[in-house]
Amino acid sequence: MSQVFDVAVVGASGMIGESMISILEERNFPVRNLYPLGSERSAGSTLKFNDESVRIGLLSEFDFSRVQFGLFSAGASVSDVYAPMAAADGCTVIDNTSRFRYEPEIPLVIPEVNGHALRNHERLIANPNCSTIQMIVALKPIYDAVGIDRINVCTYQSVSGAGRSAVNELAGQTAALLNGRTAEISIAPKQIAFNVIPHIDRFQENGYTKEEMKMVWETRKILGDDSILVNPTAVRVPVFFGHSEAVHIETKDKLTAEQARELLRAANGVTVVDDPNELMYPTAVTHAANRDDVFVGRIREDITLHRGLNMWVVSDNVRKGGALNSVQIAEYLIDGVHWLIRFHRFFCKFSGGQF
Amino acid sequence: MSQVFDVAVVGASGMIGESMISILEERNFPVRNLYPLGSERSAGSTLKFNDESVRIGLLSEFDFSRVQFGLFSAGASVSDVYAPMAAADGCTVIDNTSRFRYEPEIPLVIPEVNGHALRNHERLIANPNCSTIQMIVALKPIYDAVGIDRINVCTYQSVSGAGRSAVNELAGQTAALLNGRTAEISIAPKQIAFNVIPHIDRFQENGYTKEEMKMVWETRKILGDDSILVNPTAVRVPVFFGHSEAVHIETKDKLTAEQARELLRAANGVTVVDDPNELMYPTAVTHAANRDDVFVGRIREDITLHRGLNMWVVSDNVRKGGALNSVQIAEYLIDGVHWLIRFHRFFCKFSGGQF
Repeated sequence: MSQVFDVAVVGASGMIGESMISILEERNFPVRNLYPLGSERSAGSTLKFNDESVRIGLLSEFDFSRVQFGLFSAGASVSDVYAPMAAADGCTVIDNTSRFRYEPEIPLVIPEVNGHALRNHERLIANPNCSTIQMIVALKPIYDAVGIDRINVCTYQSVSGAGRSAVNELAGQTAALLNGRTAEISIAPKQIAFNVIPHIDRFQENGYTKEEMKMVWETRKILGDDSILVNPTAVRVPVFFGHSEAVHIETKDKLTAEQARELLRAANGVTVVDDPNELMYPTAVTHAANRDDVFVGRIREDITLHRGLNMWVVSDNVRKGGALNSVQIAEYLIDGVHWLIRFHRFFCKFSGGQF
Repeated sequence: MSQVFDVAVVGASGMIGESMISILEERNFPVRNLYPLGSERSAGSTLKFNDESVRIGLLSEFDFSRVQFGLFSAGASVSDVYAPMAAADGCTVIDNTSRFRYEPEIPLVIPEVNGHALRNHERLIANPNCSTIQMIVALKPIYDAVGIDRINVCTYQSVSGAGRSAVNELAGQTAALLNGRTAEISIAPKQIAFNVIPHIDRFQENGYTKEEMKMVWETRKILGDDSILVNPTAVRVPVFFGHSEAVHIETKDKLTAEQARELLRAANGVTVVDDPNELMYPTAVTHAANRDDVFVGRIREDITLHRGLNMWVVSDNVRKGGALNSVQIAEYLIDGVHWLIRFHRFFCKFSGGQF
């Protein structure tokens, strides 16, 4: 009999939480019991999972010793309180908030990039920020092949990165403006409808925003390379789903655009969409929404720098940028368990059962 | 008596043409007779200028020897035919299309940057592309102070850069999608509502678009510096008016963020909006629309490069990026004439009239 797992999803009524639950279902993750959890606001309401109706439980009353996995996506302050408690109760927490990402002993993982970091965890694993994930998935094959000294990245981030209320805000502002009314501002710091805002998360002392510094800190930690330089500008755009990024890299050794395309075509989790003559390049609407891969196009050699390369990277920020990556971490862990079981059986067989 | 001029505006019913006419009026440009011109489609309709109704004339029948200035903004193919004819008839043409920008003998001018290039013209002057103008206005004070080796720029360009039909397309697609209908695509190469498109103008052999290469070619020509390196990514965003640009520069000598702010505060045509603690930075909606200046914020030293500097540059692409710059070129020319007249009178006075 194959293993099955009890899984809690914290922040189940949020956009990432909802997506986590539907991804568990569509990928046939071996769930025995699902425990969607939330605050007083959402507890008591129901959702569908594998054709069954499941009630959202109250996070503050939940006993995490009942589950093997806890997927957290209810904000850093919620994770701050409940994730260590859950881990202490024996639950493996995969946390999609920024709370634990920068603690040295906690793995920060994109499975296809640094799954090996999962070898040593204390039942608390951090999921990187959406804008970092798609960039690193696209860059890892190049990093492995020729090395990367420096990354210049400008983002075009959709409002869903700020949650459901930000999605509603964009829809509401847009409708108001098209009807000649004033746009009411509540979530984004300025009007986001028909505007772009170079400001996501708090400003830091050095003039960068925290969203920008996340890309710096997380890139270094995920690649295990403190020497890699990242210079980001993070910008919110009036798009509902899908982040786009203009990524410029300086490689250690020269890589042609065609060599980069070949590396990326062979990479796990990447789809190359790059034929300018056929107007083929990815965009949030045409490629990202509800797709798992990271899409890369407009790969071209920098005309100003021999070892420079430009590319355009698009992905569904809710899926690969959050929910999917969290579920993939869990899959990686149970695949590891399965592999250990197979390894154990193999040795038992050939050693006469001494293991 | 102060001088007055007869002025033709070619493409008078287009967005830039309309803006040219209203800018001539609001700046009290010394117009004696205004001749708005267009194709069969728009000829015969009327517009308001200085409280008078003026009829749009047919371009193909117009006698350019009747005017001293011709402001052209009806597309490169129209300029190709009519601009040289007008210049041959004695009219000084200020052309806002890409047709003549890269011809070595034709000045490409942003008055506050390289007005001196107007000293030698053969009655044909080119207005740079909108995305180049705002970038160079923001960079010139820094270029003059410490030199610039290289520019990395990612643009966030509004649909008005593609004309009125593109503005209508964004409004139409947005309304359709909010009403659950399909977005019809006609002007932009993909759906632009709630999307961003890394593709403006045609793709070139080197993988860059022509819009991107314009920034390369025009920067060099305007600054008169063939060594300056420009690596652009040009992206269309669902914004009606105002282009934003994430500009990263590598200066020849180190410049701090505060020194850059000081230089820009003192610069002509630039407004610094840069106080992160007060959430002060420019955006298209809050700063660009219907304003003359180029707005600069988020000025910060690059954490990855000692001589690197990042900034966020926003401007009204229809005004400073087109109509206003064209009118400012004309003003510069007539100021030059006035200055020559004053210079002449001054010498006459002090030389006993021998000049």
